[in-house]
Amino acid sequence: MTFSLTILGSSSALPTSKRFPTAHLLNVNERFFLIDCGEGTQIQLRRFRTRMGRINRIFISHMHGDHIFGLFGLLSSYQLLGRTADLHIHGPGELNELIGFYKKNFAQAGDFRIIVHAVSHRRAQVIFEDERVEVTAFPLRHRVPTSGYLFREKPAELNVRKDALDMYKPLIEQVVAIKKGEDLILSDGSVVPNEDLTLPPWKTRSYAYCTDTVYDPAIVEIIKDVDLLYHEATFSDNDKELAAATLHSTAGQAAEIARMAGAQKLLLGHFSSRYKDLDVLLKQAAAVFPESYLVNDGDSFEVERKRELRP
Amino acid sequence: MTFSLTILGSSSALPTSKRFPTAHLLNVNERFFLIDCGEGTQIQLRRFRTRMGRINRIFISHMHGDHIFGLFGLLSSYQLLGRTADLHIHGPGELNELIGFYKKNFAQAGDFRIIVHAVSHRRAQVIFEDERVEVTAFPLRHRVPTSGYLFREKPAELNVRKDALDMYKPLIEQVVAIKKGEDLILSDGSVVPNEDLTLPPWKTRSYAYCTDTVYDPAIVEIIKDVDLLYHEATFSDNDKELAAATLHSTAGQAAEIARMAGAQKLLLGHFSSRYKDLDVLLKQAAAVFPESYLVNDGDSFEVERKRELRP
Repeated sequence: MTFSLTILGSSSALPTSKRFPTAHLLNVNERFFLIDCGEGTQIQLRRFRTRMGRINRIFISHMHGDHIFGLFGLLSSYQLLGRTADLHIHGPGELNELIGFYKKNFAQAGDFRIIVHAVSHRRAQVIFEDERVEVTAFPLRHRVPTSGYLFREKPAELNVRKDALDMYKPLIEQVVAIKKGEDLILSDGSVVPNEDLTLPPWKTRSYAYCTDTVYDPAIVEIIKDVDLLYHEATFSDNDKELAAATLHSTAGQAAEIARMAGAQKLLLGHFSSRYKDLDVLLKQAAAVFPESYLVNDGDSFEVERKRELRP
Repeated sequence: MTFSLTILGSSSALPTSKRFPTAHLLNVNERFFLIDCGEGTQIQLRRFRTRMGRINRIFISHMHGDHIFGLFGLLSSYQLLGRTADLHIHGPGELNELIGFYKKNFAQAGDFRIIVHAVSHRRAQVIFEDERVEVTAFPLRHRVPTSGYLFREKPAELNVRKDALDMYKPLIEQVVAIKKGEDLILSDGSVVPNEDLTLPPWKTRSYAYCTDTVYDPAIVEIIKDVDLLYHEATFSDNDKELAAATLHSTAGQAAEIARMAGAQKLLLGHFSSRYKDLDVLLKQAAAVFPESYLVNDGDSFEVERKRELRP
C-alpha cells in the first residue's frame, strides 16, 4: 500500500543542466497521478524508471510553459507506444485549446482518448475520487489562474482481529459489516463494540501540491495536517519584494505555511536559477519549520502507513 | 575559424533515458545554427555548455513532434532571458501555425521577433547565405514534407604571402584585389599571377543533415563531397521492410549514401529504441563505408581547416 512521491523536475521557469521544469509523480496504492508536465517529463519518467504507461490522470496547476510544455511529447509517445486507455487531464479550461492544437496537428484517428476536465480556480472542491483516493483542487494566487491539489487517501477497511474471529466466528456478511466499522450483535442479542473486534484504523495519508503561488495563508485551512507538503520556494527571504512582485514565495514563507498547517514534512522546490547555493534557502525554511527539505530531480518521498492510536 | 557540430539529441521518435529527441548545433565561424529542436533541446544546450543565446537561426526538417516540440520551451526561455535579437526559423510552412499558437498563448507584447521562412520541399535551393556560409535545403522522402539541409562555407579571402608583400610592396587596394584572386600588374606592365602571390586557398567545409528519410539516392548529387554527413539510421539492415514501410533508413543504406556521395565522415543517429546493442548497426554501416560513427548526445565533431593542394 504505497503512498510515494517522485520529483521529476524541480526548477522554476528556466531549467538548469541539473533541474528540469516542474513535474511530480504521485503513487497512491498503484494509482499513478502526474502533477504538472514541464518540458522533458517523459524523459524523466524513463530515467527514474517509473511506470509511465500506468498514468491515467494528469493534474495541471496553471498554463505557464514550465508546467505544461512536456504534454506534447508525452502524448506523442503514448500514441507511438499504442496506448489505448483514456487519459484524463484536469486543469485550467485553457487546456482545451492546447489539447485541441495537439490533436489537430499531431494525433491520428483511432488514438486513445484525451479528456480534459476544466477545474475552477475560484474555490476549493473535490474534483476526483475513486474508492481509494480523493483529490481536492483549491485556489492559489499567481499571475494567471492557478490551482493547488490535495491528494488524500480514503479510509481503508478495518482489519478484523484474529482472536475476535476465533472467539465469535462471525458469518461472512458480519465480517463485511465489521470491516466497515459496525458492531457485532451476537445471537443472544448482546453487542460487541467494533473497537473490540478490529485493529486500530490506518491513518489516511495525504499530499498537497502548492505551486506557483505567492504566500497565501488562506490555503492553510485546506491543507491542514497534511503529511507531505510541496510548496514552491522560488526565492530567498532576502528577495521578498521580488517574490511579492512576481507572485512567488520565499523559502521562509513556504515554511510558515507548513508550520501553520501542521504538516509532517515540507518539500521545497521551484528554485530560481539565480541561486548557486540553495543551503541559504534551506536554512531560512528550517528556522521556521525544522522538517524542511530541498528536493532534487529523482528524489522520492514515501509516507509510511501507520495505524491510529486508540485511547 | 571553427566548423563544428554538437549532437544535442540522437533518439528517434521515442526518447530513451540516455538519448533526447533530435537536435543538432552547428558552429560555422561563430555563427550558431540550431537544426531541429526536439523536446529538451534547451536543457541539452545548457548541459553541453553551448552558447544558446547566440543562436539566431533554426532550421526545421519536418513537422513531426520529435523534431519540434522543444521550440516551445526554447522560445519561452529566450523570452525570460530578455532576448531582443530576431530569431529566424526556416522550415515547413506549417511552422506558421505552431509559432502562431505559441505567440497567442505564451508570448508577450515587446518580445523579440520570430520570423518564419517557409522552405519548399519540392526542389533543392539556397535558402540562406551571408558572407561566410550558404545553406541549401533539399527534399527528403518521408511521411510528411521534409527537407535536408546542406551547410557550406563560402570561400575565404586568400592569404597573401609575406615574401610577395616584401618583394612587390603592393598598395592597399592591390592587396584587397589579390585577396580576391586577382593578379598583380606591376608598373612596368608585367603581370604576377595570383598563384605566386598567395597561399593555397582554404578548402570550404560542409555539413549535410539528412533526417528523416527513406533511402534516396537522389540526394547524392546535392551533398557530393560533403565533409560531415549526418544520415538517419533508424533501423538495422535486418529490418529493411520496416524502414521502407515507415520511410526511414537502415544503417547500411545510410552508409551507401555516404559512399556514393564521397563524404569524409558519416554520422549515424535517430536510432529506434528497439535496439539495445547498436554495434550491429555500426558494423553494417562500416562494411559499406568505413568512416562511419554512431553519435551520442553531447558528441562534438570538428572539421579541421585545411588548404587545398596546388599542383
